[in-house]
Amino acid sequence: MNVGLLDADVYGPSIPHLFGIKQKPDIADNNKINPILKAGVNLMSMGFLIDEGRPVIWRGPMLSKALFQMTYGVNWCFNDRELDILIIDTPPGTGDIHLTLATKYLIDGVIFVTTPQLLAVKDTIKSIEMFSELGIPIIGIVENMSYFLESTGLKKDVFGKNKTKLAELECLARIPLMESIAQAEYIDNSIFSLKDCFSELAFAVKTFIEN
Amino acid sequence: MNVGLLDADVYGPSIPHLFGIKQKPDIADNNKINPILKAGVNLMSMGFLIDEGRPVIWRGPMLSKALFQMTYGVNWCFNDRELDILIIDTPPGTGDIHLTLATKYLIDGVIFVTTPQLLAVKDTIKSIEMFSELGIPIIGIVENMSYFLESTGLKKDVFGKNKTKLAELECLARIPLMESIAQAEYIDNSIFSLKDCFSELAFAVKTFIEN
Repeated sequence: MNVGLLDADVYGPSIPHLFGIKQKPDIADNNKINPILKAGVNLMSMGFLIDEGRPVIWRGPMLSKALFQMTYGVNWCFNDRELDILIIDTPPGTGDIHLTLATKYLIDGVIFVTTPQLLAVKDTIKSIEMFSELGIPIIGIVENMSYFLESTGLKKDVFGKNKTKLAELECLARIPLMESIAQAEYIDNSIFSLKDCFSELAFAVKTFIEN
Repeated sequence: MNVGLLDADVYGPSIPHLFGIKQKPDIADNNKINPILKAGVNLMSMGFLIDEGRPVIWRGPMLSKALFQMTYGVNWCFNDRELDILIIDTPPGTGDIHLTLATKYLIDGVIFVTTPQLLAVKDTIKSIEMFSELGIPIIGIVENMSYFLESTGLKKDVFGKNKTKLAELECLARIPLMESIAQAEYIDNSIFSLKDCFSELAFAVKTFIEN
């Protein structure tokens, strides 16, 4: 599978940090930007185009322009292979980026990520409602910081248990709050200890796309 | 001290939930909105004006208008007492709300709140840079989810230790990740177990204002 990952969080892009990427992307002959291939994934992020550590002080309409640039202005098939799937990672909310994505792009499905904290789940339910109203298919929900594993092996539901059930969506995966992940400088071997969580998620997405 | 708290997170207002407020605010004779007084604080939130659970699907420019409404359109002195301090709680980022606040309002000082996770601290540094460049005074930083207290009493630095030092700001308070707080339905007695953290913060802010 040929996978692309687009980091649509303009104010806090995380892909350069998480994938440990310092270089700038190349510009192709067709004047489009080549994504950066790492860990088998074609990556694009606003963080590639701006200086690290510099704030992006933009008002809303600029966000939609940046999104357009990062989708249509990127050479997603530069390895002579069409993308099978493009994952767009957005910040939370129901603002410019979400509205533009939902109305100007053909989205196959949305996955919502939230901690089980009641306040966070309530906000997520609002986002779910927005995408539903706009007729975008919904794949399910991922519980992040789902529980904390104490030194003794005790599983603590720090943010409460089963709160994401309130969103009435299928829970695709539960990602624990782990020191090895939370403190990882970038995606490294520690992520593979979560192989099971992510396989479950990948399988659910694959099944959704095929049906 | 007469304190006002304005929840400027239009997409995910937290004040109605945290203060357990279900009623709508009154409109005064001067056509301004009266804040809701609870726990000794004059409260205003976009969540008071919209139906709970309904998403606010707005583009950026609407955000600045809502902010204007929630500042100048609110009867902040309705108890015949001038406010001594108005705290404006914003979502993270360097977008419309932040830019409008920094350029159209007279801000006495900014406090940044972040977890100690490196990725979050990096984003916070960008916000700090934005407010610095715009000449807004900076009070300091608050470490949220600073550490987790295990059942055994062991203090675990889940997101790493001293990462907020990278922001080169005075740390005003460290708020632990506690089940009692994380799972609280609204602000209740559990918050008072953190009295020490918050007194330290309040003292630092008071000192900053007086100097």
